Amino acid sequence: MTRTIHYHLTYTFLTIALPLPSRAAEESRPPNFVVIYADDLGYGDLSCFGHPTIRTPHLDRMAAEGMRFTQFYSAACVCTPSRAALMTGRLPIRNGMCSEKRRVLFPDSGGGIPADEITLAELLKEQGYTTGCFGKWHLGHLPQFLPTKNGFDAYFGIPYSNDMDRLNDVAPKGREAFWNPKVEYWNVPLMRDEEIIERPADQTTITRRYTEEAVKFIQAHKDQPFFVYLPHSMVHIPLFRSPEFEGVSQRGLYGDCVEEVDWSVGQVLETLREEALAENTLVWFSSDNGPWLIFDLHGGSAGVLRDGKGCTWEGGMREPTIAWWPETIPAGEVSLELGSTMDVFCTCAALAGAKIPDDRVIDGVDLTPVLTGEGPSPREHVLYYRGTQLMAIRWGPWKAHYYTQDAYGAGARLRMGQDPPLLFHLGHDPAEKYNVNADHPDVLETIDAIAEAHRKNLDAPPSQLEIPLPTDP
Amino acid sequence: MTRTIHYHLTYTFLTIALPLPSRAAEESRPPNFVVIYADDLGYGDLSCFGHPTIRTPHLDRMAAEGMRFTQFYSAACVCTPSRAALMTGRLPIRNGMCSEKRRVLFPDSGGGIPADEITLAELLKEQGYTTGCFGKWHLGHLPQFLPTKNGFDAYFGIPYSNDMDRLNDVAPKGREAFWNPKVEYWNVPLMRDEEIIERPADQTTITRRYTEEAVKFIQAHKDQPFFVYLPHSMVHIPLFRSPEFEGVSQRGLYGDCVEEVDWSVGQVLETLREEALAENTLVWFSSDNGPWLIFDLHGGSAGVLRDGKGCTWEGGMREPTIAWWPETIPAGEVSLELGSTMDVFCTCAALAGAKIPDDRVIDGVDLTPVLTGEGPSPREHVLYYRGTQLMAIRWGPWKAHYYTQDAYGAGARLRMGQDPPLLFHLGHDPAEKYNVNADHPDVLETIDAIAEAHRKNLDAPPSQLEIPLPTDP
Repeated sequence: MTRTIHYHLTYTFLTIALPLPSRAAEESRPPNFVVIYADDLGYGDLSCFGHPTIRTPHLDRMAAEGMRFTQFYSAACVCTPSRAALMTGRLPIRNGMCSEKRRVLFPDSGGGIPADEITLAELLKEQGYTTGCFGKWHLGHLPQFLPTKNGFDAYFGIPYSNDMDRLNDVAPKGREAFWNPKVEYWNVPLMRDEEIIERPADQTTITRRYTEEAVKFIQAHKDQPFFVYLPHSMVHIPLFRSPEFEGVSQRGLYGDCVEEVDWSVGQVLETLREEALAENTLVWFSSDNGPWLIFDLHGGSAGVLRDGKGCTWEGGMREPTIAWWPETIPAGEVSLELGSTMDVFCTCAALAGAKIPDDRVIDGVDLTPVLTGEGPSPREHVLYYRGTQLMAIRWGPWKAHYYTQDAYGAGARLRMGQDPPLLFHLGHDPAEKYNVNADHPDVLETIDAIAEAHRKNLDAPPSQLEIPLPTDP
Repeated sequence: MTRTIHYHLTYTFLTIALPLPSRAAEESRPPNFVVIYADDLGYGDLSCFGHPTIRTPHLDRMAAEGMRFTQFYSAACVCTPSRAALMTGRLPIRNGMCSEKRRVLFPDSGGGIPADEITLAELLKEQGYTTGCFGKWHLGHLPQFLPTKNGFDAYFGIPYSNDMDRLNDVAPKGREAFWNPKVEYWNVPLMRDEEIIERPADQTTITRRYTEEAVKFIQAHKDQPFFVYLPHSMVHIPLFRSPEFEGVSQRGLYGDCVEEVDWSVGQVLETLREEALAENTLVWFSSDNGPWLIFDLHGGSAGVLRDGKGCTWEGGMREPTIAWWPETIPAGEVSLELGSTMDVFCTCAALAGAKIPDDRVIDGVDLTPVLTGEGPSPREHVLYYRGTQLMAIRWGPWKAHYYTQDAYGAGARLRMGQDPPLLFHLGHDPAEKYNVNADHPDVLETIDAIAEAHRKNLDAPPSQLEIPLPTDP
């Protein structure tokens, strides 16, 4: 009721005060999209996902006004392939954005997202959208791979992870560098469009600056459809936050950083409200992969889920996801429907009226019926890749592990083949504790058939992640 | 804004349509109290506390309209002492409601809550409240210990746990009895006031019947202050739910039972709304102790917290707690303030204008400032007892374990003295993973002083839990 009244008032005000396009024109304008992507944030790290001591009032409010997804997945358990899938709606195995040898791109990598891949930004630009990327890219740092070459009109951010480019003559050896991060250890460049504007990037203010850039972009482009991609470099180690967030969280440094990302979300949503764009903007919040548990208290928590970043247990790939679109998404819904970050691609494309490419396999589905409350998710299964290896498949509530490998501890060095596959009922057993494969051979058969159909349709190009930097001629 | 408008409309309607007491009289009427106490529900078992597959829309709404506490404790890790503390505001060690030999009361117990203890029901009755208890009592089943002898005008429920009184000639041996519960295994009596009205109690409808009794009681007594205590026997094993809840949850049988308790909460809140009592009723929801993990999928989840029922790790005693009182408690707040079920006693007593007994030690504090958002919790520490042993103390974010003993696995049989005590920072480390005692001797000193002051002021009577049933003369 609050929202209805609020928007009626806004509309009345606007029609009186401003020379606006007609209502009909307004209605034909496709929605704006904002995708906020945290880095290494765990499934259990938000208050609305159950964390007891991290305060996330803005994300809690986003969930209270929108839809909170409890079974939503990234397409990879590490950074580069996860982001490639979000941008293309395709599994990384299909576009070379994964590898067994190097799990992500590094400053010495010469590869990146292939030119013939169609990013969400490119698709939306064709529909007349203005597009901006503010944050960590990590799909190739050479000029031809940058956001501005992949559909984004504007870019402000770092090209790879914030722990890359260490100054080895300054930084202490080993993990202690991360425990007490000082800006002078790191040499990560900050770029605007295709230029390096600051090096090392001052990471203590980076969450705030990404946010300010995104907010300015929204304000500047509010009169046409826009797509804002805001991939925060936090809460990936080394952890940094603005002076205003020092010591604010009961959860310590990691909590401070999550709470600054939460502040960022609040700034974006408040801007949309202030600019009267809320009811015409779909905002997604998610994370690229699970928490990086080897960093102890500098890593997050997957809550009740097993393990974290880097593996295909649930903690590695299930993400705390919220969708917000007042008046279209019913407020305060908790959705148990299956979703994937690849579905963000298809959902936004469909809502923008864009044609989904039909010359290639697209792994995403259109979640619009879930968002509007009109129907179930079209997604029937989830494929869990680690590098180029299909490790596990979820079908409905069932998850079969063909291989298991932990992210953490002794099991991290050992990939175990499982025959028959381990089988978990993720509805009953979200923590993957109770293997029930002996009781459900029929389920394993169905999942085997999904695996076989997937393999038949798979054409994996060489890895981009194994290409070295070109040497100067 | 919704709520303000809603209540204005309600008030307008009432003043026009009904011969109401004057506004002044209304304002002088103290608030009603409803305490809903789940059994063995884990910290992580509600959707609003992060469970991914259990749906609890009514409790989620209660939290969205009220205050969700993330650091709220029961005073014991098993049933009888936890309930004794809730009813008296006192640690069980002070009134004999704990023991090293028998952890709770059984059908062959002859003890119960001592007559000279002052229950919340007794205190509120003196203030003119009508009082009703609907559910599991477990503070003594002999006539002198029943709810009707402890301040309750009405009682409908079972006198001890729902797994007691097994028919050993019918029930299979071992835990399998619990996996496939049939009503005929169990011989638990259902009582009304002081009479047994059904034996065995039909537990398949017991959650529904407690709820219906509580709702009828509210409707019948709405014209005077009331106190309703609704201690569900679910989700303690053996698990039962009404036919309407069979198979509704993705979490299986356990989830079905939680979702029926959630339905019950919805019924109570809806009744309060319909009777225009919402803004004059403080409703608490909590659980008596953590999840009973040894029952695997028939037990709940403590989420990110360590271990469960029966131990003094956080999973054993931190409870998913919500307080609801529209117009008084700010909507949608998440409170990280320290609280205890013993504080329910003091808060309700204070709000009712009752005098807190001053002839004995009361361990609860008045949380009214927290509920109204006017100030921090007066609670500075939490004492963790297992039986008669003080195992651990929380002071602010710090928790020192003088003894550790698991609920589950090999560690359950071994009580380990810790000198120096293990020390965890529960803000940074809610899962109690990282002992930091070497770094904080000053904190240990302060906690030692709290322990010493507590012991000085401690007068522990003989245990009620060790008294056998009297033999017939």
